[in-house]
Amino acid sequence: MSSPTLDDRRFVLSLGTPDRTGIVAAISTFLADAGASIVEAAYHADTAGGWFFTRQAVSAASLPIGLDELRRRFEPVAAELGPGTEWRLEDSTDRKRVVLLVSREGHCLHDLLGRAASGDLPMDICAVVGNHPDLETVTTRHDVPFHYVPFPKDPAERGPAFEEVRRLVDVHDPHAVVLARFMQVLPAELCEHWAGRAINIHHSFLPSFVGARPYHQAFSRGVKLIGATCHYVTAELDAGPIIEQDVIRVDHTDEVPDMVRRGRDIEKLVLARGLRWHLEDRVLVHGRKTVVFD
Amino acid sequence: MSSPTLDDRRFVLSLGTPDRTGIVAAISTFLADAGASIVEAAYHADTAGGWFFTRQAVSAASLPIGLDELRRRFEPVAAELGPGTEWRLEDSTDRKRVVLLVSREGHCLHDLLGRAASGDLPMDICAVVGNHPDLETVTTRHDVPFHYVPFPKDPAERGPAFEEVRRLVDVHDPHAVVLARFMQVLPAELCEHWAGRAINIHHSFLPSFVGARPYHQAFSRGVKLIGATCHYVTAELDAGPIIEQDVIRVDHTDEVPDMVRRGRDIEKLVLARGLRWHLEDRVLVHGRKTVVFD
Amino acid sequence: MSSPTLDDRRFVLSLGTPDRTGIVAAISTFLADAGASIVEAAYHADTAGGWFFTRQAVSAASLPIGLDELRRRFEPVAAELGPGTEWRLEDSTDRKRVVLLVSREGHCLHDLLGRAASGDLPMDICAVVGNHPDLETVTTRHDVPFHYVPFPKDPAERGPAFEEVRRLVDVHDPHAVVLARFMQVLPAELCEHWAGRAINIHHSFLPSFVGARPYHQAFSRGVKLIGATCHYVTAELDAGPIIEQDVIRVDHTDEVPDMVRRGRDIEKLVLARGLRWHLEDRVLVHGRKTVVFD
Amino acid sequence: MSSPTLDDRRFVLSLGTPDRTGIVAAISTFLADAGASIVEAAYHADTAGGWFFTRQAVSAASLPIGLDELRRRFEPVAAELGPGTEWRLEDSTDRKRVVLLVSREGHCLHDLLGRAASGDLPMDICAVVGNHPDLETVTTRHDVPFHYVPFPKDPAERGPAFEEVRRLVDVHDPHAVVLARFMQVLPAELCEHWAGRAINIHHSFLPSFVGARPYHQAFSRGVKLIGATCHYVTAELDAGPIIEQDVIRVDHTDEVPDMVRRGRDIEKLVLARGLRWHLEDRVLVHGRKTVVFD
Repeated sequence: MSSPTLDDRRFVLSLGTPDRTGIVAAISTFLADAGASIVEAAYHADTAGGWFFTRQAVSAASLPIGLDELRRRFEPVAAELGPGTEWRLEDSTDRKRVVLLVSREGHCLHDLLGRAASGDLPMDICAVVGNHPDLETVTTRHDVPFHYVPFPKDPAERGPAFEEVRRLVDVHDPHAVVLARFMQVLPAELCEHWAGRAINIHHSFLPSFVGARPYHQAFSRGVKLIGATCHYVTAELDAGPIIEQDVIRVDHTDEVPDMVRRGRDIEKLVLARGLRWHLEDRVLVHGRKTVVFD
Repeated sequence: MSSPTLDDRRFVLSLGTPDRTGIVAAISTFLADAGASIVEAAYHADTAGGWFFTRQAVSAASLPIGLDELRRRFEPVAAELGPGTEWRLEDSTDRKRVVLLVSREGHCLHDLLGRAASGDLPMDICAVVGNHPDLETVTTRHDVPFHYVPFPKDPAERGPAFEEVRRLVDVHDPHAVVLARFMQVLPAELCEHWAGRAINIHHSFLPSFVGARPYHQAFSRGVKLIGATCHYVTAELDAGPIIEQDVIRVDHTDEVPDMVRRGRDIEKLVLARGLRWHLEDRVLVHGRKTVVFD
Repeated sequence: MSSPTLDDRRFVLSLGTPDRTGIVAAISTFLADAGASIVEAAYHADTAGGWFFTRQAVSAASLPIGLDELRRRFEPVAAELGPGTEWRLEDSTDRKRVVLLVSREGHCLHDLLGRAASGDLPMDICAVVGNHPDLETVTTRHDVPFHYVPFPKDPAERGPAFEEVRRLVDVHDPHAVVLARFMQVLPAELCEHWAGRAINIHHSFLPSFVGARPYHQAFSRGVKLIGATCHYVTAELDAGPIIEQDVIRVDHTDEVPDMVRRGRDIEKLVLARGLRWHLEDRVLVHGRKTVVFD
Repeated sequence: MSSPTLDDRRFVLSLGTPDRTGIVAAISTFLADAGASIVEAAYHADTAGGWFFTRQAVSAASLPIGLDELRRRFEPVAAELGPGTEWRLEDSTDRKRVVLLVSREGHCLHDLLGRAASGDLPMDICAVVGNHPDLETVTTRHDVPFHYVPFPKDPAERGPAFEEVRRLVDVHDPHAVVLARFMQVLPAELCEHWAGRAINIHHSFLPSFVGARPYHQAFSRGVKLIGATCHYVTAELDAGPIIEQDVIRVDHTDEVPDMVRRGRDIEKLVLARGLRWHLEDRVLVHGRKTVVFD
């Protein structure tokens, strides 16, 4: 795993395609012919699903051509790989645009603002949208615009609020829409619209404790570990492709408020890891599962 | 945490009682009056449930009296604590009797036989009962009797087989009946009969993936961690009080057979830890949850 | 483990004393006589060292008297316990005063400022002192004063700078002086002056990789885990009593910059955990080791 | 990660070579031309050291030729890669020969015998050599020959004993010589003779606590985690290339015997993981470090 820096510029190819013999040869011969020095490479063949995934990072300095030209030349190679092939070629030094959705809990927001400020994640936080005003101060102190969109009590009347959120997000054409403890369920239409870009952190080890108040559920069941799950948002609640999960140990002395407090640390770590992999083009989605080349 | 040895004999009091002021004072004054040197002590007040739990280990050598006399003298102290109080006073050097139930998967059996042989767990394995004959050789090589009880295909006809298992187990009056990857669901009546003594290892991080083929369920869902759960058996499938859980990381390269193989390591560790705590009187059950003084 | 809140005010007794029979009885009888309801209690007997440690939290609401009176009444009980006994009685709702020392790396500072702002740790950050000016902006944005104390290149001439740091710290009479990636070695005299209050985060799993550039050392050795250690500062470099440690997995793909980046997450978590335990009076130091009642 | 089975036969190429452009293209074109379907592939470029590593597993069933022919055809490809190139081509269904060296502690031996018996590791344990007779019974019960080689007290007189061990090992021409808690330091000459094949489990998180009695050292230092390290044996004590490490949490209640007991679980797991990777040709050594394609 490596963090992109200006001294260390890479072009990153990520690709999913129907599996057959010769894919690696085709891609690596293309890269070798272009003079590219491969710095990082990973492959995965999903034998059951008949699908092949790869991510390759080449040193930009090793190439006599730029990203656009490399993309242009790769097009016929990809076309040969057959129908269903999906690929991207990205510059690791391009900072990604991110919009955050929040409610009242600020730990994930604090953490992401700190990471953006210190250059720990390759992103610009373009805006924060909250359905409560609580997190405005911390956001604006980081020179990030905060938009407060109040949500009506009645779920049936929330359509216009979601429309407003959508407008505030889409103006930035973001690479990622992060639900950083945003406590509203996105309508199916928005899930579809942001498919592959909307990332949620759920405060349980899914599929345990789907839905509301997972720490209460965990306490009631008497589990010995609590967890957090970072996943892409889909129309089915808490059922989208999982990017990352982790857990911490609890015991009989931990009541719900203790779980809430201790869970914050694992939530923010899991979200930051999942978001990093997304921003670094390390996550390939196939069906309801992910391949993560970390 | 300490392992009892002959050089290090302890009397262990474990107790659950309705919470009120003065319980610790009553117990510790009793022990001090008896001259007992407390080597290990733990307390827990379940404030929501209004229940108090404690485990105290005293040096046997510090006492002028034996275990029976200590028990006799403690009776009036416990009686003062009010209705519902449950307590035990045990000698840490008494080896506990254990019977194992198995099917075909041998990793937990191998591990427990090895631990018994090397004195790692304070137990004698009195017998192993299997509904398949596969694990007879490894069992008898450790000089432990193996009983093969074939189970009919039709669940409706399994009553006599369970009766036979019950008989083979109960003859040893065991402190623990361990379902070491025993692939039959115990009838409610047996769960009741062995309540607080029957311990199962389930190969998932419960409450995720209850029931059959949890690794297949985990693979299908695309989770990033797989786990194991050691719990007391109750009539509701995989829903008994949890003693211990742990997880290991998996990724997109792990197919079901990899999960099965890698899961074996976590299953045997979690079972061994949970069983140790049970045998060392570190687990107090209250409702559907446990207090574990590890 | 529980976080103190105003609804949940506790008086916390922590005590270390020469071990002998009857200590628990003496303390618990005292508390019961005062009418105190014990919410959390932990004991530890260091049999080799002949020392006994306890921490007991009682519900303030259960007591008819205040903290000062409780302290006054406990004095004769403690006096009975013999020479060398050390104890504190604290109010869990008192916020502790903390001063942070920093250099250029901001991740621990960001994390602690965020935790203070959101009430996650029971502390007020009174001031931040830096030997570089880099972290002034983030500090003052949180309305915390920042003091820049430049340090001369020549170690022999740093005395006045350390004097200035000492003055800036001591004006707050802090409960904790946190070296949040402060890259200067404290002089022995300051270590002594802040003994039991100065807390450092070292970016290795001590005792591996003492001193400078531990990630470079780790990379060179080819270890498969990197870690962080939170410890009290003593005159011997990186050798003070350890409060908390943790590790994360690395592999052959992680070069030094990757370790630095990934290590930041474990450093800030380990420091936050260790600091919490210190602030909640959960850490008792004895010799070069700690007892942590977490 | 996948376990080789007869249904799932693979030819595994592992290779280290000076880094330059076109290596992947050369290898993957070769494999594609041979008709090989790549099931698993991993690459690593050590940019600082200028070395390139790869491991590729191809489905044997996808090839019209056998392993010997594949090796023969690969020779000129490897020759092209330049001086210093090292490679192996192995059949994943070939069971590897392993000899174990032991002393008195049996937990690693028990674990490896169990894994061999249940097919969990792709190995045949040809023999066990002990410098104490304690573990003869458990070994022979698994139908494995045990050789007792007594060692003289005086280190200066141990030469003949080591000669005897060497003879008993070499007769099997083993793929791995596992020091499964063997408490004798191998002479430099034997380290050299078995270079790349002798694997040790050390009961600490190296480089902490090199040499004797690491748990005593850990207890004395007051660390909060203890660990185990699986590494190749070299002439410098406990300094060979590390294959795998892991840790478990301890606290102030764990005295040396507790660490010894709890450490056993992590020792046997770490050894089993490291040995698996060695046997599956997943470990490439370069200098004093390893690349592990797990």
